[in-house]
Formats: sequence, structure tokens, C-alpha cells
Amino acid sequence: MIKVIAHFYIKPEFVEKTESLFKELVEKSRKEKGCISYELFEVQGDTGHMVFIETWKDKNALDAHSKTEHFVRIIDELTTMSYKEALVTVMTQKL
Amino acid sequence: MIKVIAHFYIKPEFVEKTESLFKELVEKSRKEKGCISYELFEVQGDTGHMVFIETWKDKNALDAHSKTEHFVRIIDELTTMSYKEALVTVMTQKL
Repeated sequence: MIKVIAHFYIKPEFVEKTESLFKELVEKSRKEKGCISYELFEVQGDTGHMVFIETWKDKNALDAHSKTEHFVRIIDELTTMSYKEALVTVMTQKL
Repeated sequence: MIKVIAHFYIKPEFVEKTESLFKELVEKSRKEKGCISYELFEVQGDTGHMVFIETWKDKNALDAHSKTEHFVRIIDELTTMSYKEALVTVMTQKL
């Protein structure tokens, strides 16, 4: 099992515009083979700071995810509307 | 529901010593009222970089957690064995 945390930092003027993109990415990712969970959180008091917490069956499932059309397109769009580079952490469970 | 991500950066020479502290913190936190989940992950290829992902019923449960004896003592000890300040993000679920 692979856990991923991905922090995104959306410019305030684009927060509304990204809502549909986040929604599409969550919906399509959840349907992917090997996707155990795919959740989006917003950071309190930090507008535009959004965090994905994802659980994947294995590395292959995660690699396949990063090659899907929706992932490539949407991450590209989110990046253009961000004020800071996304911070992605890939982990395995310890306890 | 409140989600917390907490990154810890343990100096390599203390990684082994912190194992029992992490274990105690996870076990005791999971028994606390309002604790929905409390998991520890290790970051691939980044020795000593450990991440808690926690789910709490509400803000009160999280606040009570941060005042428990085990939390105060163990976080204090982990901090002295860290090479960088812990990075804590408090969030609410969006999708």
C-alpha cells in the first residue's frame, strides 16, 4: 500500500476556477484500478492551500495514475494557477 | 471532522531511538476520545522523515490531544532529536 500527500498552492484569484478541476480529478481518480482512497482537504486559514491524501494498492497503480489523461491535463492546469510548486510526499505505512 | 498531517524530521542517529516513542504516541493517541484514526508513515528514500496522518472528531478532540501527558512529553523528545522543525497542517475535508 502506498500513501501520497500532495499540497497545492492555488493563487486566490483562481480558487473558484479550480473547483471543477479538483472535482473532476477526484471523481476520475477514484474510479482508477488500484485507487483505495483519494480525498481532498483545504487548509484552515490558508486560502488556496489544498491537500490531496491518496491511498494506492501499490507503486504500479500510482505510476499508472500519473500517466492518465485526466491527471496529466489537470495537474498541468493547476500548476499554471499556483503561486508555489506542489509538494508531493510518497510514503509507506509504519504504524 | 479534522484531519492533521504532521511531518517529523528525525536525525539519522536517533531514528532507532525514536521507534518506541512513535509506537507509544500512536497507541495512546488511538485510545483517546474523538480519535478516528492515527497513522504513522515513513517517507521513501528520506531516512528519518516520518509523517503522521490523523483524523479527529472535532477541534475539541484535537485540542485535548495536544494537552495529554503523552503528547507533550513525546513531541518534546522528538523535537530534541529532529534536524528540522515539525511541519503540521490542520485541514477539513472538501471532496
